[in-house]
Amino acid sequence: MQKEIWPGGALLAPVPPALVSCGSLEAPAVLTVGWTGIVNTRPPRTYVSIRPERNSYPIIKERGEFVINLPTARLARAVDLCGCRSGRQVDKFALAHLTPSPASAVTAPLIEECPVSLECRVFQSIPLGSHEMFLADILAVQVDAALLDEAGRLCLEKADLLAYAHGGYFALGKQLGSFGYSVRKKKKRQPKR
Amino acid sequence: MQKEIWPGGALLAPVPPALVSCGSLEAPAVLTVGWTGIVNTRPPRTYVSIRPERNSYPIIKERGEFVINLPTARLARAVDLCGCRSGRQVDKFALAHLTPSPASAVTAPLIEECPVSLECRVFQSIPLGSHEMFLADILAVQVDAALLDEAGRLCLEKADLLAYAHGGYFALGKQLGSFGYSVRKKKKRQPKR
Repeated sequence: MQKEIWPGGALLAPVPPALVSCGSLEAPAVLTVGWTGIVNTRPPRTYVSIRPERNSYPIIKERGEFVINLPTARLARAVDLCGCRSGRQVDKFALAHLTPSPASAVTAPLIEECPVSLECRVFQSIPLGSHEMFLADILAVQVDAALLDEAGRLCLEKADLLAYAHGGYFALGKQLGSFGYSVRKKKKRQPKR
Repeated sequence: MQKEIWPGGALLAPVPPALVSCGSLEAPAVLTVGWTGIVNTRPPRTYVSIRPERNSYPIIKERGEFVINLPTARLARAVDLCGCRSGRQVDKFALAHLTPSPASAVTAPLIEECPVSLECRVFQSIPLGSHEMFLADILAVQVDAALLDEAGRLCLEKADLLAYAHGGYFALGKQLGSFGYSVRKKKKRQPKR
């Protein structure tokens, strides 16, 4: 494979194009964030990196709470809109047909139309240059009950989650395997009679 | 939408199931990491969170360098294997048919079979519980020259990148839009004659 060497750039993909909601149920705000990820499993911890110029920045900085909402493929247009427009100019909830709804562990609202929401409380923030990273505990998770099977297990593959890669919004495609499949022992076939 | 409220959990998806390489060309190591993301755009900065029990942890801790390699859908089995097996027991490069190759800005090797590699140098590490977060500058990026168009632009949608969501490996599916498409003015149609 012939490689080209470029200067450093933010070329990680795919990332979750998360709808991050903050503020309160009475004065909600929302923005799209590609710079998010899990940073720790036990306790569950995450981050979002946000430019100080964004309308939501002082809200999260002051209140120390936000919700990461995972969008579905059918919300692609709403996700793009919440990344391109500012809450200072327009009512993004109305424009994108999104509904703020009460969370359980934080005063920040979640977004009703998203099948998974992570309720987060900031424990540390680090200015890194263009963005400030807000590190947060995930205090509670809300999931769409329609995604649970009879045993109560979450079947997230049914959620049709949205992915973002280098400027493009993508649906998730074919499932190619599941964690551990490469090392699982194959069942022996029944011998032919 | 009926929601269930659960305790906090690491339920963010999709994430990039990155092959993280470290060590040296002579003594390379590789592990699969779902806990990665961009934390800053200018300068470009990223992180990986790694459990101290992993074979690669002391290598990255000591050398302060690693490479994030983005795998394609056809590398799904290799990615799973590098997440399930330890370099203490097996030669993961041989077992997964991966080739360590020289990077440009760090002594850690990159993985030849991956179309995008981010060469990273740690500037801070933060123990967060089960994992330690290594924050790093992205010093250089290597991309497969076959993914560039005639103008030299990267067409990452041709790379067939792999995504990971809640225990499943997925190909990226249909492209639904591109950044800004929800707010772009539509071109006026030519009137019919």
